[in-house]
Amino acid sequence: MEKLKKGYLFPEISIRHEAHLKKYPDAKVISLGIGDTTEPIPSIITSAMAEYAIALSTPEGYEGYGPEQGQKSLRKVISEKIYPNMGIKESEVFISDGAQCDIARLQMLFGSDVTIAVQDPTFPGYVDNGVIMGQTGKADESGKYAGIAYMRCAPENSFFPDLSSVPRTDVIFFCSPNNPTGHVASHAQLRELVDFARRNGSIIVFDSAYAWYVSEEEEGSNKKPRSIYEVPGAREVAIEISSFSKFAGFTGVRLGWAVVPDELRYADGSPVARDFDRVVCTCFNGASSVAQAGGLACLSSEQGRDAVRRVVDVYKQNARLLVDTFADLGKEVYGGAHSPYVWVRFPGRKSWDVFAEILDKTHVITVPGTGFGPGGEGFIRVSAFNSRDRVVEAAARLKKFLA
Amino acid sequence: MEKLKKGYLFPEISIRHEAHLKKYPDAKVISLGIGDTTEPIPSIITSAMAEYAIALSTPEGYEGYGPEQGQKSLRKVISEKIYPNMGIKESEVFISDGAQCDIARLQMLFGSDVTIAVQDPTFPGYVDNGVIMGQTGKADESGKYAGIAYMRCAPENSFFPDLSSVPRTDVIFFCSPNNPTGHVASHAQLRELVDFARRNGSIIVFDSAYAWYVSEEEEGSNKKPRSIYEVPGAREVAIEISSFSKFAGFTGVRLGWAVVPDELRYADGSPVARDFDRVVCTCFNGASSVAQAGGLACLSSEQGRDAVRRVVDVYKQNARLLVDTFADLGKEVYGGAHSPYVWVRFPGRKSWDVFAEILDKTHVITVPGTGFGPGGEGFIRVSAFNSRDRVVEAAARLKKFLA
Repeated sequence: MEKLKKGYLFPEISIRHEAHLKKYPDAKVISLGIGDTTEPIPSIITSAMAEYAIALSTPEGYEGYGPEQGQKSLRKVISEKIYPNMGIKESEVFISDGAQCDIARLQMLFGSDVTIAVQDPTFPGYVDNGVIMGQTGKADESGKYAGIAYMRCAPENSFFPDLSSVPRTDVIFFCSPNNPTGHVASHAQLRELVDFARRNGSIIVFDSAYAWYVSEEEEGSNKKPRSIYEVPGAREVAIEISSFSKFAGFTGVRLGWAVVPDELRYADGSPVARDFDRVVCTCFNGASSVAQAGGLACLSSEQGRDAVRRVVDVYKQNARLLVDTFADLGKEVYGGAHSPYVWVRFPGRKSWDVFAEILDKTHVITVPGTGFGPGGEGFIRVSAFNSRDRVVEAAARLKKFLA
Repeated sequence: MEKLKKGYLFPEISIRHEAHLKKYPDAKVISLGIGDTTEPIPSIITSAMAEYAIALSTPEGYEGYGPEQGQKSLRKVISEKIYPNMGIKESEVFISDGAQCDIARLQMLFGSDVTIAVQDPTFPGYVDNGVIMGQTGKADESGKYAGIAYMRCAPENSFFPDLSSVPRTDVIFFCSPNNPTGHVASHAQLRELVDFARRNGSIIVFDSAYAWYVSEEEEGSNKKPRSIYEVPGAREVAIEISSFSKFAGFTGVRLGWAVVPDELRYADGSPVARDFDRVVCTCFNGASSVAQAGGLACLSSEQGRDAVRRVVDVYKQNARLLVDTFADLGKEVYGGAHSPYVWVRFPGRKSWDVFAEILDKTHVITVPGTGFGPGGEGFIRVSAFNSRDRVVEAAARLKKFLA
């Protein structure tokens, strides 16, 4: 525990937010910081949760413990609607209370003796859980932990690492569309990654929490993958984790899933799924049944899926507005097209300084790039998760600040 | 992972249940096995969850991520209503998705280098999570893992270990009312335990998931404690974990809490709560907001608390019926008075054999005592969690079988 750097990123931003409010008590602070959804959940979903909850007070509708792996009906609809034609079986889907919790359970499964690789920058949860499990040495001055392979992802390499220079590790965490850069890996890139893992006998943990933000506009070979299982051979090397948080607004409701294919085996041939099932049954008792009722309503009808698509579109339009704002000002800006996150470069600057200056001058909260790894230095992440009005207002303030 | 014994207890019972149904397709099986609630949740609670869910589809009512440690209002009402006059502060209460998940997070916090002691028999989650974390050696033939101190709790020692023969460990897991024996520790016993931990610099993890089953009939010095914090000095050595599952019927809804007092410190003087907070923020994203709305409705009014007390009384009456059934037949029977569990001795018999014979002859599912540790050999646990009708029917069948 002592090795963990001071303050998890978002609590640290909260502290700075509070200090800012003390300094400027009347400031109308707009948060484009933490990736927290703000749009209401479509009523087709909330009605289903309400109905399920009310039924719990009747003898016919009451249910106690569900299967630790989740309701059969929900596992089935995920296998069919999220993974059409990818050969994912209902039994390979494990329902959870969110991707972050699944990362912790996977790290518990992997234990302290594995080596891991992560994109740099990336969501800090993979590394932080690895540090807690004792997989790493101490952090150096840049924030890199000894023993972790950091795969630099920057504009210079199209946000995809040069795998020939990446050492073999037991596990590779890979997030696409990436948090924070907003970059979505192409089919060719994911194929390269899968081949790399197959050659090395590595397990890929593919985080597709933002898959619903991948635009369907580009067709054919340009169409970006929403799942690692669109790539041939992935079933033998990849676990996929995902979540209802960012497409259905379930950040507070808590619901996600992990896919562990039958073909994924340890070196001795034994199935990884058997051990993951054991971890799920021992360390977890299943996601809330009420949340699962909501998830089922979200995915099981065209009406439900359309309703959440409309919510995702709100955030995507926000993201476009933010991209345009920075682009108009001549900034190097990435992401936002297949992601709710916009990644902006401030060459030669420290990202915490840029964060502080933007907050001080515009009362807009962003996230300093270094919060996602040393490769985030010189960048800030701007989140599209807020109401249209506030994003418009924030864009206006940023324009003034950057002009 | 390989060290874990085959099959978590309840999945193993499920498998035997299914095999039984194949053998006797028409059997009316009654489960007095897994401790799963069966009574509907009082409508004051489900209405609150439904209202909260519906509000999530409105701009005013929508909420995203809550604090990882739980809603302030729920933490407050727990500190006031569950721990009256015990000096527990709102900030010391961490809301969770259930006690089993908190055990996993605590074991993650403790890491692989600690030594642990458990009651024998006891809920298997403490040991299983310790094995996953790598705290133990291999299991011997009786099922005891090397490196764990098993504190025998049997009728012969009033279900409380002789602490003078228990080695010092870093952590002591202690469940009261105990699952499976149904024994509730007295004030004097808990005082002894707290003093032992203080002398040894050990941390007690006190599991009070069944605290609502402690009868209030015995007054004065005979009144049994519902919390470890009723004992002076406990704040400096004890974490308490608990759950809405067994008193509010939240086994599927998922809601619990852990109390980590400020005074609990490591040997170097640093607070345990700081590290636990870090684990909660890194490995968990908070309990479902809908479940939290239900928990608040359950505890915040006299009406809510009375409603769940009535549900607990249903199970307690079931338990009394089961105790009387076994007692009438001259069996040695324990528990049931302050607990939904009845613990019955079958001298000289293997508990899995008794389980199998009862299932075969009466179509009643119980739990073999050895599922809770080697000290459970010769016993079965009978759960009072079922409808009155089914418990009456099961009691009649058991009477016939045992006569």
